[in-house]
This record gives sequence, structure tokens and C-alpha cells, in this order.
Amino acid sequence: MRRLLEPESIAIIGASPSADKPGTILLRNLLDHGFRGPIYPIHPTAREVLGLRAYPSISAVPAPVDLVFVVVPRSAVADALRGCVARKVKGAVIVSAGFGEVGGDGPAMELELRQILAGSGVAAIGPNTIGLVHTARRLVASFVPFSHWTDGPVAIAAQSGNFVGSLADELMARATQRLGIRLAVAFGNKIDVDEVDFLDYAAADPEIRVVGLHLESLGRPRAFLDKVRQVTLDKPVIVLKTGRTHAGAMAAASHTGALAIEDRVLDAALRQVNAIRARNAEDFLALLKAFSWAPIPKGPGVGIVTFSGANGVMASDDLHEAGLSLPDFAGGTVRRIARLLPDWAPVRNPADVWLALGAGRRQALEEPLLAVLDDPAVDSVLGLLLALPNTDFPEIAAVFAGARQRHPDKPIFLVLTGGATKDRWLHELEPVQIPVDADPSASIRAIRAMLDYASRRQRRRGEPAGSVGPGEAG
Amino acid sequence: MRRLLEPESIAIIGASPSADKPGTILLRNLLDHGFRGPIYPIHPTAREVLGLRAYPSISAVPAPVDLVFVVVPRSAVADALRGCVARKVKGAVIVSAGFGEVGGDGPAMELELRQILAGSGVAAIGPNTIGLVHTARRLVASFVPFSHWTDGPVAIAAQSGNFVGSLADELMARATQRLGIRLAVAFGNKIDVDEVDFLDYAAADPEIRVVGLHLESLGRPRAFLDKVRQVTLDKPVIVLKTGRTHAGAMAAASHTGALAIEDRVLDAALRQVNAIRARNAEDFLALLKAFSWAPIPKGPGVGIVTFSGANGVMASDDLHEAGLSLPDFAGGTVRRIARLLPDWAPVRNPADVWLALGAGRRQALEEPLLAVLDDPAVDSVLGLLLALPNTDFPEIAAVFAGARQRHPDKPIFLVLTGGATKDRWLHELEPVQIPVDADPSASIRAIRAMLDYASRRQRRRGEPAGSVGPGEAG
Repeated sequence: MRRLLEPESIAIIGASPSADKPGTILLRNLLDHGFRGPIYPIHPTAREVLGLRAYPSISAVPAPVDLVFVVVPRSAVADALRGCVARKVKGAVIVSAGFGEVGGDGPAMELELRQILAGSGVAAIGPNTIGLVHTARRLVASFVPFSHWTDGPVAIAAQSGNFVGSLADELMARATQRLGIRLAVAFGNKIDVDEVDFLDYAAADPEIRVVGLHLESLGRPRAFLDKVRQVTLDKPVIVLKTGRTHAGAMAAASHTGALAIEDRVLDAALRQVNAIRARNAEDFLALLKAFSWAPIPKGPGVGIVTFSGANGVMASDDLHEAGLSLPDFAGGTVRRIARLLPDWAPVRNPADVWLALGAGRRQALEEPLLAVLDDPAVDSVLGLLLALPNTDFPEIAAVFAGARQRHPDKPIFLVLTGGATKDRWLHELEPVQIPVDADPSASIRAIRAMLDYASRRQRRRGEPAGSVGPGEAG
Repeated sequence: MRRLLEPESIAIIGASPSADKPGTILLRNLLDHGFRGPIYPIHPTAREVLGLRAYPSISAVPAPVDLVFVVVPRSAVADALRGCVARKVKGAVIVSAGFGEVGGDGPAMELELRQILAGSGVAAIGPNTIGLVHTARRLVASFVPFSHWTDGPVAIAAQSGNFVGSLADELMARATQRLGIRLAVAFGNKIDVDEVDFLDYAAADPEIRVVGLHLESLGRPRAFLDKVRQVTLDKPVIVLKTGRTHAGAMAAASHTGALAIEDRVLDAALRQVNAIRARNAEDFLALLKAFSWAPIPKGPGVGIVTFSGANGVMASDDLHEAGLSLPDFAGGTVRRIARLLPDWAPVRNPADVWLALGAGRRQALEEPLLAVLDDPAVDSVLGLLLALPNTDFPEIAAVFAGARQRHPDKPIFLVLTGGATKDRWLHELEPVQIPVDADPSASIRAIRAMLDYASRRQRRRGEPAGSVGPGEAG
């Protein structure tokens, strides 16, 4: 992967004066995001592309070329790849599609590419990929145009280019709850490098703390599971494996030429190596966010602060079903919250603090939040807040920044219900990096996944069971 | 309910010159949304509230009063209610809390309210409610401030005031995918009217096509189930029943004083009377939207048009698990789509049309969409679209308006992935009322629920099984 992700110079076979061509968009992405080395557009006739001198072939480039993007019609890919081998480049990204994933002569053409690469020393990714991104290297090399890109602790890789591309585009376009991504790679048909190589690279980079993988097939299941087992000793690995059902596997076969693997077997194997399996794309993103932003809770006790009794009831249901607990609050906690409420109002977990609004808006949120966080039986806090004009106050970010600082080891998850006030709160909370979910079930699912990950890791590291437990739900 | 929802004149006990008080906010809502009849603020000393003449007591009002809102501390509620009875008003909305839902003397105080009302002829709702909304009557009577309110075919009722209030606020604040609501009622502790009365009213209003209920308890389970059975012959009823687990039921008891009902029993009973049970608040909203905006599909065949093979694979998995089918396309459908693709690209269901972009952006979406809609084996269409700068075109609304018009009997669901382009598409699609979900699993869940509802209804109406089938998943 290093040969593909750390180039000093780049050529793009298929960049052209036509602005809409994928090769040209890829070139513009590289320029816009400030790739530091020389870039050589390769085009049979053009003398210049986007202000850069163009060359008729890879052999005509007068300086070393580390990485080549191949973005040409599929019939021209083999020749382009031969040029890369002749030139002894370090890596090739084959963006073009129409190979193993389709019928007819696609598989035969893919075999030809494999033969060209065999023993060549050229590392290749694709075909049928959209490219790759390594934020720290300013390498934003994809034919999906990204107007900006936020760095962060996450590495994601996907079999499908459009999947990772559109996912990343959606993430990067978000104004709030925007996950930072350091590394994003689309393997496509995995003619050479695959998820095992990616995990190797992600494991070695200390800036990467969370790994997300989208897979439709496993080329080397054993090597993959061994590698995951090793990586998860340090970093959580979230896996979105699709093609679970027969219908899905059929669709996958025509998408990336993937062969199916018995899903139940894979599911058990993933659990054994302590990977976390996402249920769908939404869940995949929610888990990546939780692991990136929140500390892993020390135990199953969840304290709930709610402004809506109804939401407290729903969250209690979900907590119970996830095998988490709703511990009774300590006397001191109860007293701190009771002070804000009419004397007839009960204080339990979930703490319904709607009536505390009489004591002032900031007060009504901050004091119960801190009291519940301080409670020794509480390992995580779930805040079910109404973001409405009549609960609003200006220092929302300060309240949560203070709470996080006070208990950096206890995760805080929020569900916000409301309209315009909610949008403002989301904006203001952005620097504090508190996960905000659409429904308490998503937060509870994340807490459960974090606990499961931590308790399995602890066992494998041979540490005492300590405070993490009880038995896993998964 | 008519006595509560169709007043000609209103009094508010607890409206005050202090702008932040719930009674004052309620009054402002009534004024802002143009309630047409006279409104009388009741306050011990103020002579005017928000420009309206105030009266020291309900008995001092010199004209008939139909509906009274009681928004005073709990110790003053009984007296206020006695005033209402003496004045022979039609209805009373008891907003104040601190009764059956709390410990201490709460239950005894609630009993007192019940005694005051017994045989009085005054219909009452609450205590512990936030009020009610009847859009067609310009009756926006809640202490949650709503800056605007959109009419529509949905009636929702909830046990919890804050639940329906914050839900409605969130819906009304949305710029896109905004569900119109005709009727919204919060029962609170259900001292008098309850969900059965609400269903009666909603059944009789021809403008209401979809009913949503949030419940923590059932006061009259048999009457409720009988009523649901009757209503669902005409209109779908979506039920969000919480307090499913022991933990949830405990929380519900301290929230609205609700007694739990064995969840598995209720679940079966709801299915028998053809109610649709929502899984959580998010699901509740998604189902209300699907039933309001989309026609009920005639059968289980789903045609998928996707710009991302990966999303097609995920949707195939979800479809299979939901017991829906992915029919093979007819020859004509295949030919229409194949014309847009390179000759080596396969055409299957899901149809991956990413490469059709070479034929033009609008063309790449519109032609496959119409071809799949036209296919006789397709009952619903799921579009998994990339809303990216390189797939964008200006006439997105026209494409979907045309598609809906062409097949008004086939629902179209969309999942859009992308950033700024996605936001623009959502805005432009707003008048077309196409449900857009965050994940294909949500759309597939809605299609399944619609089919289940329709096939049970058909059976109960004694109609031939016809084209709806096969066997239900639920």
C-alpha cells in the first residue's frame, strides 16, 4: 500500500482538456487539495491539461513517476498498464471498469491485466475503483469532485468505489457531525492489493484510531481474519459486509465479481476476531463516529437525562434490549437534581428534568447532566434533549465542553429533537465532538458495540475482567 | 373530542403579562396562527395580556366560553376546573402536571379532578399535556411555540405532550421532507378523553388519511382494539407503543402514570386489528410519511435503479430479508436500459446505471427510472441515487413529477447520497412528495408495511387476494 499511498510524483493516463472526464476531475482534485509533487497528464494529442504540460505517453515523461492513474476505456487499459510496467512505476490505480465484474470477455481481460502485473513489481489497485485519498499526503485522487476534505482518525476502505466516494462526499459536505477521514481507499475488483494490505497500512499509522471496511467478498478470508484479530488489539475495526443474502450475493457478483461466503460463518468469525459488524450504511457511519469521538465506557451503566418522559421510556426499552443497565442514582445525585424540581416531582433514572426549566434553562440542563455524570454507577450518559425556543440558551457548547472535560472517560451521547434551535445547537456543538444521533436506539447500539469491543479486547490481552461487563449482548 | 377540537371561543387560565410563561406562549400561538374566535386571558390582576382584555376569573368573562386551557400551578387546578364546570364550558385542556404521574399526593389530587368532572358534561384532556392542534380550525394551542404549521393528511396523538410537541416542532422546522399534520393531540394522563375518542374523531374526518398514535398505556384495551379494527378498514393506523420492556414500563409509570400491558400480547393484538407497529420514533415518522405520500404498491416486486453497485447489493439483502422480491426485468426494459450502457455492461435488477452517465446526466436517471416503472413485474421502484456534482442536472423535479404522473399507482422511494447537491435535490423534490430515506432499509421497511396493511385489509373486506401478496413477513 505504501507504493500506492505515498507517491512523490503522479501521472494520469486519461486526463484530458475536456473538463467533465473522470481523469480530468481526478487531476483537478489533486491540484485543489494541494498535492505537493509533480503531476503529469498523459493524453495522445493535448499539449496541456489544466495548465500542466501533457505528454503523449508514460514513456515520454522526462522524470521519475511513482504512481499512475489509468482512466481510459477498458480496451486501452492493458496497453496503459504495459507502459507502467516498462516504466517501472511503483504503483498503478486502474480506475476503468468492465472487467471481472461483467460477463462476456470481461473476466478474460482482467486475467490479461493480472498477467501483465505478475512479477512486475508494480503494486496495483482496481480495476473498477474511483481512486484513493490520503489526507496527510494531500493526495485526494478520485474522480468524485470533493470541494473540501477534513482530516481525522478514521481510515475507510470499500470494495465499491461509488460507495466510498458518495459516502465521503456526503460526510465532507455535512456542516455538522462531520467525521474526519485520514485514509479512504476503494479496491474495486482487487486485482492486486486488497483489504489485508489496507489493514496492514492502517495498523502502522499511529494517527489512525478507527478502521472501517465495506466488503462484498473476501479474497483471502484466513489472512483477513488473522489481520483483523491483530489490528483489533489496538484499534476497532467496523465491518460492513454486504451480499448477506442470496439476492444480495447475486447482485454483488455482478457488481465487483465477488464470490459469496456463507454469511453465518463469516458473522461468527468476525465476532471471534473482535470486529464490529455494522448493520447497514447508516449504522456503519454511526459506529465510526462513536469510536472516533467518544471514550469507551467502563461498564454497562447508563444515566439518562431527558426533557421528554416519552423519550426516556423509549430509551429504557432499547437499553434493556441491548443488555445495558439503568442504575439507580446515588442519594447525592438525586438531591442535586431534586433541588431544581417541584417537591412532588420524582427523581429516577431516566431523570425527567423538564420541570427544572423553572430554575433557568442552562441550569435545567447543566446541573442534572453534571450530577448524572458524577454518579459513580454511571458509565455513559445519554441526553435526550428538546432543542426548542423555550429550552434554548446561548452557552450550549460551554456546557458540554465542561462536562467532557470533567469526565473525559465517560461518553456522552445526545439525541436532539427540535427545529431551528436544534440546527444551531448542532453547529455550536461541532467543535466539542459529541455524537448526536437521530434516535436513542442508535446511541445505545453504539454504547453496546463499544463495550463488547472493549471486553473482548481485554480478555484477549489477558487483562483482568475489571469493570467492563456484564456478558455481551452480541 | 369535538367539544375540545372545534371551539368557537377560548379562555386561558394562566396567560400572563410575562412572555415566557407557558400560558402566554399558548396564547401567542393561537394569535399567530389566526384563531378566528374570541380569546379571553384569565389572570388575577392583569388587565391586558398580549393586547387582549384579561379577566380575573372565568366567571367574569361576559360572553360564552367553549374551551378553557388550564395552565396554573397544580395546587390551583382543582379550583380552576370547578370554575369551568360552573361556567358550563364545553371542554377543558389541563396542561398543568404533577398528578397521577408522580408519587406523594399526586394520584389523590388527580382523583379530585376526576370527581369535579364526573357528570359535569365538560370534556377534559390532560392533566400533563401540552395542548392540541387542529390545523383546519387554526387552533394551534400548545405551549411549544410553532413558527409555522403545515396542513396535511396526518392525525397524530401521543400520551406525552413533549413527545408530540417536539416531534411536531422538528417536522415543522424541516425545510424538506416535511409532513403535513392536520391534527395533533397530547392526552397526558387521560383523565377523560383518550385514544379511543381520538380515533373516533380522526375516522370521521375525510381529510385525514393516516393516523399515528404514541402510547405508553391503554386505559380501555378492548375498546381501543375494536376501534382500531374499524378505522383500519379505511385508514392506516401507525402505533408507537413504548414501555415494551420492564425497564421501559417502569419509566412509563413515572411518566404518565401508565400501567404496563404484556408487550407480546399487545403486539399480536395490534397485528390482528391491522395496526402497523413502529419500531421507534424514527420509524414512526418514516411510516407516516410513506403512507401519506406514496400509493400502496400492488404487489411485492421491487425494481431498483442504482448509481452505486454497493448500494444495490445492500438493498438486495434488505429486500430479501423483508420477503419482497426483485423480479427479472422484461426484455423491453433490459433493452431500454442497455441502450445507455457500454455493450459489455450487464442489465439486471438492481439496474446499476452509473455508466449510463456517458449518455447524459438526465438521460442516465430518467430513462432507466421510466423503463423500470413501466415494467409489468415491478410494483414499487427504489432509486439509490448519487446526488453529486458530476451526476447533477437542473430538471430533477420534472423527472420525478413525470414519473409519478405516468404511474400514480406505483410508489417511488429514494435514497440520496451526497452533499450540497443532495440538499438542492431535496428542496426541488419537496413539491413532488417523494419519500427520501437515509438508508434503503427504511424504504424497504415502508414498502413491506404498506403491503402488509393492504393485504390484511383486503382479506377483511372480503375482497379476492388479487395481486397483493405473497405471505406477509410481519
